[in-house]
Amino acid sequence: MKKGCPLGTHRVIEPAGALPQPAKKIDNTMELYDNEILIDVQTLNIDSASFTQIKQQAEGDLEKIKEIMLEIVAERGKHQNPVTGSGGMLIGTVEKIGSALEGKVDLKAGDKIATLVSLSLTPLRIDEILEIRKDIDQVDIKGKAIVFESGIYAVIPKDLPENLALSVLDVAGAPAQTAKLVKPGDTVVVVGGAGKSGMLCCYEAKRRAGVTGKVICLGHSEKSLARAKEADIADVYIAADATKPVEIMEKVAAATNGKMADITINCVNVQDTEMSCILATKKDGLIYFFSMATSFTKAALGAEGVGSDVTMIVGNGYTKGHAEITLQIMRESQALRKVYEELYA
Amino acid sequence: MKKGCPLGTHRVIEPAGALPQPAKKIDNTMELYDNEILIDVQTLNIDSASFTQIKQQAEGDLEKIKEIMLEIVAERGKHQNPVTGSGGMLIGTVEKIGSALEGKVDLKAGDKIATLVSLSLTPLRIDEILEIRKDIDQVDIKGKAIVFESGIYAVIPKDLPENLALSVLDVAGAPAQTAKLVKPGDTVVVVGGAGKSGMLCCYEAKRRAGVTGKVICLGHSEKSLARAKEADIADVYIAADATKPVEIMEKVAAATNGKMADITINCVNVQDTEMSCILATKKDGLIYFFSMATSFTKAALGAEGVGSDVTMIVGNGYTKGHAEITLQIMRESQALRKVYEELYA
Ligand SMILES: NC(=O)c1ccc[n+]([C@@H]2O[C@H](COP(=O)([O-])OP(=O)(O)OC[C@H]3O[C@@H](n4cnc5c(N)ncnc54)[C@H](OP(=O)(O)O)[C@@H]3O)[C@@H](O)[C@H]2O)c1
Ligand SMILES: NC(=O)c1ccc[n+]([C@@H]2O[C@H](COP(=O)([O-])OP(=O)(O)OC[C@H]3O[C@@H](n4cnc5c(N)ncnc54)[C@H](OP(=O)(O)O)[C@@H]3O)[C@@H](O)[C@H]2O)c1
Repeated sequence: MKKGCPLGTHRVIEPAGALPQPAKKIDNTMELYDNEILIDVQTLNIDSASFTQIKQQAEGDLEKIKEIMLEIVAERGKHQNPVTGSGGMLIGTVEKIGSALEGKVDLKAGDKIATLVSLSLTPLRIDEILEIRKDIDQVDIKGKAIVFESGIYAVIPKDLPENLALSVLDVAGAPAQTAKLVKPGDTVVVVGGAGKSGMLCCYEAKRRAGVTGKVICLGHSEKSLARAKEADIADVYIAADATKPVEIMEKVAAATNGKMADITINCVNVQDTEMSCILATKKDGLIYFFSMATSFTKAALGAEGVGSDVTMIVGNGYTKGHAEITLQIMRESQALRKVYEELYA
Repeated sequence: MKKGCPLGTHRVIEPAGALPQPAKKIDNTMELYDNEILIDVQTLNIDSASFTQIKQQAEGDLEKIKEIMLEIVAERGKHQNPVTGSGGMLIGTVEKIGSALEGKVDLKAGDKIATLVSLSLTPLRIDEILEIRKDIDQVDIKGKAIVFESGIYAVIPKDLPENLALSVLDVAGAPAQTAKLVKPGDTVVVVGGAGKSGMLCCYEAKRRAGVTGKVICLGHSEKSLARAKEADIADVYIAADATKPVEIMEKVAAATNGKMADITINCVNVQDTEMSCILATKKDGLIYFFSMATSFTKAALGAEGVGSDVTMIVGNGYTKGHAEITLQIMRESQALRKVYEELYA
């Protein structure tokens, strides 16, 4: 077997010297290097921002969606949306483990795993698209993928439905970061709090903020907000449009006696919500942008523009133990599990 | 006088409900609202990422640069580069203070001030472009600008040359954030450490990290690196291309015995340097992205892609006391002041 670089640079075709994620094109031939893992893919979970864009471009047409997806992979060797830059993740079965990794990883052929590195850097070959579950961003395929030595993955637990695990693992970084950031007594606003990552963040924020804290779930449609209420994940529920900063500021002010949030977590899948988060948060507060639709300059200049000293964190999809933390929520909260099973499993 | 909103929303023309920074077009007529300050503008300091783009588009031609700048302001009512999204700042003289602000602000007509909110949200009228200092991003104009009630500014100190103050105030957020983040004993890498904001960050990092810490100035051209060395702002100086992540990783590993940086500060003005910062930093370290050329998705997915738990902070241009902290460096360090006077004053 050929020797590979731990970061997967041996797969980069263009531009030379780049890493697989920023690369324009990577090699998706399925001949294994010594430090790679070959996966027989079952389901892709396309990143929400990416799939929303693809559906729009395809005007909802299933055949058109297939075409766009195949084109992306043909062009880039990976499923990285050229508009949003983002990927998603996948589940599949371990087919083969490179010779340099054998005995070093806690995996064997036949194990079912979810990759926790983005599809935007994962060498992928799609042989056939079998089924598209449009409303939950899941696509069943026949195909293969490669996990690099530096890549992360989780073995799918036996006590949870597979598609449920896939759905929540996709956004595992969000509740795990919430766990690290929220302290007892904090007032926390979750923007997009009734979505997939948003509900997990609300739940985890409520646990951390405790009885002296306050968690505000800021949802969009009445339908998703009703679902969140049923799962009882927050102290306050507000329906509002996160692209309207002044409206959000006023609603959060009303819910906090004008004190605003200590921590705001952004879990929406649409653009132009940076300013709402900034105005919802105390000037010495903290914003965690999990949304991939976040613009760096809009956040940086937006805060400066209103003289806010807020700390803004880029939502790193990975944090230590994020898979365990997130799967544990599904075991702990029957109410939340019911919602996620109905929606995604 | 008409009553204005503290955030300046009364000036937004398009889209309705937006704030001035994200707005596509704002009203730049110079009739004052009651909570605004009218400035007679002397010099614009165009954001480095923005001016680099404009110079490229104009192929260095001065008349073309003027044309592009005038077009931007004609279209948007503010100097917000449509490609980079960023602005810059200005100095000028207070001409008039709105009636609702009189007695409330520590300013009077005739004071010379620097605005510390971005040009990307500042109503601006350019009557004439008088001189372009291409190498230092400064443009002398005849024109007027408006500062909103929520805007921030600094009175130009009498003991420092004006253009020097303008230059360092433009990047005041960077050293002030460095002061907040760096702790004794830290290993700090400043990428773009020999540039305008970079040298200030190195200086401040060295002060905070102390004798038990290590500050690594990562420069680009030998020329700028020599300048930084002369000012004695770091412990180690390395010339490297920050768009080459593997090269950067290896050089930082060599300089830190493989331990990598606790904190990396990104002060470059070019794209595609996110991955270098991630690989230069410990997996539980911190990256402060001051560069406006940072891509949110490249940072978020890049870290996830290599399984790094690094905390990544969006460079908010404002932090409390940033002007004082930065001007103080110019008073304290004769060596650094000499460099900045030669370059910018
Ligand atoms: N950083 C990472 O590594 C990473 C990993 C995975 C995903 N993500 C990102 O995380 C974000 C959320 O993902 P998800 O899976 O949780 O998505 P999701 O389930 O589709 O949730 C998105 C939520 O945003 C709400 N929303 C949409 N437009 C809104 C508006 N104008 N105002 C307020 N709320 C609005 C939606 O509400 P309605 O349904 O009621 O309209 C929905 O609840 C996406 O941007 C995705 O790209 C990041
Ligand atoms: N967040 C905010 O509020 C805010 C405010 C102001 C500015 N900024 C941003 O801060 C950044 C720096 O501004 P500045 O005024 O300090 O700019 P600057 O003085 O032009 O410095 C940029 C530095 O980057 C270096 N560089 C360029 N290409 C490089 C490469 N491939 N590898 C390594 N280094 C490279 C340059 O080195 P050489 O000269 O040797 O080529 C230079 O020293 C800009 O992106 C600007 O937009 C942000």
